[in-house]
Amino acid sequence: MLYLEDIEVGQKASFGRYEVTREEVIAFASKYDAQPFHLSDEAAAKTYFGRIAASGWHTCAMTMSMIVENGKTNPMATMGSPGVDELRWLRPVYPGDTLRVETLIADVTPSRSKPDIGTFKSDLTVFNQGDVAVMRMKTIVLIRRRPA
Amino acid sequence: MLYLEDIEVGQKASFGRYEVTREEVIAFASKYDAQPFHLSDEAAAKTYFGRIAASGWHTCAMTMSMIVENGKTNPMATMGSPGVDELRWLRPVYPGDTLRVETLIADVTPSRSKPDIGTFKSDLTVFNQGDVAVMRMKTIVLIRRRPA
Repeated sequence: MLYLEDIEVGQKASFGRYEVTREEVIAFASKYDAQPFHLSDEAAAKTYFGRIAASGWHTCAMTMSMIVENGKTNPMATMGSPGVDELRWLRPVYPGDTLRVETLIADVTPSRSKPDIGTFKSDLTVFNQGDVAVMRMKTIVLIRRRPA
Repeated sequence: MLYLEDIEVGQKASFGRYEVTREEVIAFASKYDAQPFHLSDEAAAKTYFGRIAASGWHTCAMTMSMIVENGKTNPMATMGSPGVDELRWLRPVYPGDTLRVETLIADVTPSRSKPDIGTFKSDLTVFNQGDVAVMRMKTIVLIRRRPA
């Protein structure tokens, strides 16, 4: 189990493999983001997207899935997240794409008020199978300190 | 249809009503954010959450659903979003909660390079049925200018 003391600025990680299916893109968008360019190739052809593209929130969800899956083999004493900064949907995510994640630790800070926890920040980028960056964000994660 | 010219800094909106169900919280988390505190009351009882709580990404998705639903009665010539800033999960979202949205227009900027589009920024807050703010973010939205 990795604790705050095991995280250092500059550490990099690369993980994940998520195959984006047309069925899942449409299912997510139908429920949560029913804009025409997420639901129909015909509608998307009239827009920047060109063809049906995943909701940006779906890309966030797929990314979280890769983070959780990675945590099974590299467990960390994380306690959830207060949020993210500078979330950017850089390029469309299309059915048939395969996504992966790269992270770079940007900051590690022990809590001033709580002696047993701290926070790290990670610059996270999602790439497609062509190594094109499709999304990036700066995540903030709560993590326990190593027990004495 | 509302265009860039119809959006002004300081405009407020209040909309949405999303009933958070236990079934949906578990379904979303099982697929995208399978951390124990999103899946089981027993596991959540050992954490800050206290009982099963929705994934923050699920709250984002539910919020997007309210935005899209609101757009049906108040259509805007929007073209998607390049991202969001300062996304913060302020308080847990629990099964049984009912969510709603408030927005405040913070910035309106015509594109320098493309004469037919522009961008607006909106400070968005999600409240639960107790009027407690559970999430906030600064959204960035692309929108068409009014046709001549």
